[in-house]
Amino acid sequence: MLSKNKIKFIQSLNRKKVRDQEQLFLVEGNKMVQEAIESDFQIEFVCATEGFIQETLFKNEHDFELIECSGDEIKKASLLQNPQQALAVIKMPKQTVQIDDIKNKFTLALDFIQDPGNLGTIIRIADWFGIGHILCSENTVDCFNPKVIQASMGAIFRINLRYTNLAESISKANKSNIPVFGTFLEGENIYQTKLPSSGILVMGNEGNGISAEIEKEIAHKIHIPSFANSNKGSESLNVATATAICCSEFKRRE
Amino acid sequence: MLSKNKIKFIQSLNRKKVRDQEQLFLVEGNKMVQEAIESDFQIEFVCATEGFIQETLFKNEHDFELIECSGDEIKKASLLQNPQQALAVIKMPKQTVQIDDIKNKFTLALDFIQDPGNLGTIIRIADWFGIGHILCSENTVDCFNPKVIQASMGAIFRINLRYTNLAESISKANKSNIPVFGTFLEGENIYQTKLPSSGILVMGNEGNGISAEIEKEIAHKIHIPSFANSNKGSESLNVATATAICCSEFKRRE
Repeated sequence: MLSKNKIKFIQSLNRKKVRDQEQLFLVEGNKMVQEAIESDFQIEFVCATEGFIQETLFKNEHDFELIECSGDEIKKASLLQNPQQALAVIKMPKQTVQIDDIKNKFTLALDFIQDPGNLGTIIRIADWFGIGHILCSENTVDCFNPKVIQASMGAIFRINLRYTNLAESISKANKSNIPVFGTFLEGENIYQTKLPSSGILVMGNEGNGISAEIEKEIAHKIHIPSFANSNKGSESLNVATATAICCSEFKRRE
Repeated sequence: MLSKNKIKFIQSLNRKKVRDQEQLFLVEGNKMVQEAIESDFQIEFVCATEGFIQETLFKNEHDFELIECSGDEIKKASLLQNPQQALAVIKMPKQTVQIDDIKNKFTLALDFIQDPGNLGTIIRIADWFGIGHILCSENTVDCFNPKVIQASMGAIFRINLRYTNLAESISKANKSNIPVFGTFLEGENIYQTKLPSSGILVMGNEGNGISAEIEKEIAHKIHIPSFANSNKGSESLNVATATAICCSEFKRRE
């Protein structure tokens, strides 16, 4: 049974302030909950229907509170339009990424990504391309926002994110001779640019691109050229789309 | 002034049935409305604030009804969370794409894309890559759904879409010797595949990929390989993300 208080608490995790206070976040959906259980993340509690419990690992031992409840109860607690048979409340991991950790690796850096769907999609892209670390500016949307979690399709459990003063981090990377790339309208055609197998790729805000403060730290400006037939074509790609194309270009050449 | 009836009518365009009956669709936001006016689409009417009217083309002649109204009135009619200063109701164009039109061109075909955000993003990607035509299966989400329009960021005005019996259309394409590509888990590594500059690329449903009926018609199966470090990585990319990477691969080699 899911008490009224528990339902209220689950829903309150929609708010960043509560998540930060409690150091907890919400994961919804059968597949996502299963991925959470299989991950290294610490689980606070799981709410699931009898059917879901029988079908999954729960028959074995587990070290978290398991609350059996009805589909209707999950519906009440859920933030989704189409709730499923399970949700989980999970402890936030420590953010430990240091510049030394990303030497000789290919890493993403996000400068003020605002849309949760975009951040979630970028985390999923990073996972696909074997990118282990993402540095986020402090004004990037919270990665534990439920919409980010859902759009990441479980990739949130496999990527190390760190919210940081991005200008400072990138300045440090420069001092450590890590090559730093960023996308700019006036950048070099990415298809004709020599790309290394390690470095940092900075992606900027949906409306305004990379901020002036961070632009100063970027030695390598690149650009995805448009193939539109006229100059009436789209002015830009969605930032997650652009991230995918850039990652594809870096990775295919390795 | 915006009458109650007009507000009701604008909101009713959220429903496909009404759109199809009236052959009209809704576009919201200053930039989108401007793009609509500059496009070849026929405009039924525009609702805009005095400020927007003064800042834009409306000082000149125009052949559509222009309704000056307050920001609050637009808010009442709007389907957006953050309404702007203008919205427009626009006539649906005739869908005229024929197989002969896409010979010697690179064309997208969408098999049961369900999510409006995905379809809108794919239309924007097509525009960026100079792809003029998109064939959609009849069960693909309606391209005049307001969420598709918004995600397309104006690209909807530059791309010819056609809803069609996709299996039949692709069968015709095969008979016309148009090479047909599609993404499958067991497909050939796209980075190592020879890709022509014209042909059809089929992208499949978010959950289930390309349907069996259409798979039969696809001679060239391709695949975006994962670079994940373990087999625990994401199982798939979002369909719009995958479309972007495939289009990038086709186009960069032209």
